[in-house]
Amino acid sequence: MYGGLVKELLDKKGLKIGDFAQIEFGNSKEIVKILPNSEFTEKDILVAKLENGYNFGIAVDEINNIEKVQYKEKSDDFTEPESPSIELGKNLPKVSIIYTGGTIGSKLDYRTGGVYMLLKPEELIANVPELSSIAMVHPIHLFSVASEDMTYLEWQQIARTVADEIKNGSRGVVITIGTDTMHYVASALSFMLKDLNAPVVLTGSQRSSDRGSSDAFMNLICSVRIAAESDIAEVGICMHKSSSDDYCQFIRGTKARKMNTSRRDAFRPINDLPIAHLGVKGEIYYDSDYNKIKNDKKEIDLADKFDEMVALLKVYPNSDPDIINYYKAKGYNGIIIEGTGLGHTPVSGKPEKSYLKNIKEAIDSGMIIGMTSQCLYGRVNSKVYTNLRLLSNAGVIYCEDMTPETAYVKLGWLLGNYSKSEAKKLLDKNIVGEIKDRTLYDEFLI
Amino acid sequence: MYGGLVKELLDKKGLKIGDFAQIEFGNSKEIVKILPNSEFTEKDILVAKLENGYNFGIAVDEINNIEKVQYKEKSDDFTEPESPSIELGKNLPKVSIIYTGGTIGSKLDYRTGGVYMLLKPEELIANVPELSSIAMVHPIHLFSVASEDMTYLEWQQIARTVADEIKNGSRGVVITIGTDTMHYVASALSFMLKDLNAPVVLTGSQRSSDRGSSDAFMNLICSVRIAAESDIAEVGICMHKSSSDDYCQFIRGTKARKMNTSRRDAFRPINDLPIAHLGVKGEIYYDSDYNKIKNDKKEIDLADKFDEMVALLKVYPNSDPDIINYYKAKGYNGIIIEGTGLGHTPVSGKPEKSYLKNIKEAIDSGMIIGMTSQCLYGRVNSKVYTNLRLLSNAGVIYCEDMTPETAYVKLGWLLGNYSKSEAKKLLDKNIVGEIKDRTLYDEFLI
Repeated sequence: MYGGLVKELLDKKGLKIGDFAQIEFGNSKEIVKILPNSEFTEKDILVAKLENGYNFGIAVDEINNIEKVQYKEKSDDFTEPESPSIELGKNLPKVSIIYTGGTIGSKLDYRTGGVYMLLKPEELIANVPELSSIAMVHPIHLFSVASEDMTYLEWQQIARTVADEIKNGSRGVVITIGTDTMHYVASALSFMLKDLNAPVVLTGSQRSSDRGSSDAFMNLICSVRIAAESDIAEVGICMHKSSSDDYCQFIRGTKARKMNTSRRDAFRPINDLPIAHLGVKGEIYYDSDYNKIKNDKKEIDLADKFDEMVALLKVYPNSDPDIINYYKAKGYNGIIIEGTGLGHTPVSGKPEKSYLKNIKEAIDSGMIIGMTSQCLYGRVNSKVYTNLRLLSNAGVIYCEDMTPETAYVKLGWLLGNYSKSEAKKLLDKNIVGEIKDRTLYDEFLI
Repeated sequence: MYGGLVKELLDKKGLKIGDFAQIEFGNSKEIVKILPNSEFTEKDILVAKLENGYNFGIAVDEINNIEKVQYKEKSDDFTEPESPSIELGKNLPKVSIIYTGGTIGSKLDYRTGGVYMLLKPEELIANVPELSSIAMVHPIHLFSVASEDMTYLEWQQIARTVADEIKNGSRGVVITIGTDTMHYVASALSFMLKDLNAPVVLTGSQRSSDRGSSDAFMNLICSVRIAAESDIAEVGICMHKSSSDDYCQFIRGTKARKMNTSRRDAFRPINDLPIAHLGVKGEIYYDSDYNKIKNDKKEIDLADKFDEMVALLKVYPNSDPDIINYYKAKGYNGIIIEGTGLGHTPVSGKPEKSYLKNIKEAIDSGMIIGMTSQCLYGRVNSKVYTNLRLLSNAGVIYCEDMTPETAYVKLGWLLGNYSKSEAKKLLDKNIVGEIKDRTLYDEFLI
């Protein structure tokens, strides 16, 4: 129950829980339904449901005006939320929600202005009662690690937990995670969960869940829906499709990338189309000719080893090619180069700036060197220019249309699970959708 | 004059130079005007002018059919090109074209399938007679260096040549250059040419100039037009705006980035709008409230020093923070980190993976460390999360909305031309448009 400033305001305006009100804040004027707070709601925050069906919290001092209105519910947008009990949904498909940390479970500390993590998944779910009508959710608090601090050890823990949950009867799995390295993790899970036969959805939020502009609720609802209802049998990222709250999209795990530091629609497909998008009401639209659906009885073959002795190296003008020797001396087994354009390093200019000799020596000593492009969009090519052919002839493997991040994760995974010669052969061959034969015209900057 | 297969075909079809013909190739059917070839035209290539006004070359074996047609010229699209003499245009503004190499001056070797550079700028201009009606072009063959092999030494040579040309009466300067590192060079020139009071335009092509799909001609024509006619007083990149041949765009040098390995519209503004776009007929449209126009009598103050002891370092999961010590031991004066999200490195996870200690020690020893984001779009922020504040408190400078490439070039330039303490102060302050106060909603993925 509300106290403090919220109670004062509601009492003054004659508003009670379940009433409709017109609320003014910033430049916005919205019709909302007043919702009860929970034990986790911050002090002086009013919780309400918007007409578009999702909840938001607003600080009393952000509210310019609030007045009770008579409102006839035109649709089910404003139907009473079910009780936030996570026991509900018993006849619905079981969906595991693996909680690993990140902004999706963060709250703002109004004293310092900083964001701190909420440590209980129940706290999150209590704020999203819609979940209980989609699935029988099974929350698991695996750990709370900031996305930027995650390593392959966390990737392995997540992969094992996903495999266990699916073996234990979950129809699909949602992983809530920080957004910084979500696409690295999505790539890793795509490779580690071999013969995956269920939807595995990573999601997070760019705005913490107690802010009015939070994308946490809608992202989580859409992700659980994919896990509970879709026949997608691969790992992907489900986040906002646009910066409006109209659609989320599901992007293949090996083709996704965080392309904006702060926008809610930061995750974009690179050299790919989204697999599906979802409206807030629950409809799922498949955007491409999607065919990788659940269709066999295979069990997950967990291949979760990872060789961390792989580097991701961005090359740039004036850079010192000695960096290749540095990694060689440290005993690295592979390097993914983020080259320029079609996949260049300096080669034919000043001898002391040429990477060719060091790359050749590293390859001859047994290192695997793959080439991607810092352009991100498009495909590398080992043939068009002389310098490309020189690198290719030295043994550099051109990684087609893979992002640098996916190529990095793939090489670490290959070296962890296969022999070096097999890894070398597989790096530029498609395994789980990370390489497409042909880049479509529409796949640029979407 | 044509010989070989082209002559045979033209004779058989009763076509001569100046005639109109319907030509069929691939899935296309176009009305063209037959143009004369030049001494530089490859064997068995027919040169013709399309209705959209620009020239193309097509190999005889690509032509499915060609038939003479009667065609009434509706517009000046098909007016006779002027003689390709580079002496023409004497009463027009003088525009220097500094030729530095790259695909814009490349041709395909039909035997090997590779691309080789054309070494004579006249060869290029002979193929673009339109230039002679826009400006009195003054071609300079500075050098022929592949874009990926350029270092700050070439940037300095270009900067000095631009300054000389403007001092010697050029209204504007066009630099033809390879595309791989064009945006690094554009950033460098933006900083080096202080008090610039003329348009300086970098251009190139993604398809070599003897291919039907080449963007070389239109890019060069539009670039010369900006140099000859616009009042823009800064450095920018002029390339295709879309993958059609309808518009080119001019992007601020510090805000441009090559975002596709092969598309003709690969160069995009990052956290910025294009300054202008140009139609093929010569009209210039200013896309933003553009105000940095020529308006004073200042002379260029050439500040062309550059400190190459600066590194650009992409951080990724599992990476070893020892890399900071490597650069410190080598005597580097600065590092621009390409962090994740809002500007993170690993900080609070496994101690052996945390960059914090090494970064703090490097800064304490006198190194300047700047932070950008591998998201590319958006702005870094040193306040929102605990890990960000830890890095910021250690002395990391958060580089606002600069691209990693521009921040790298800026730091090298600052350390070359200012004291270390001045460089540190200026890194996150706007100098030539590289930092904007506010990111606009429309500046994402355009």
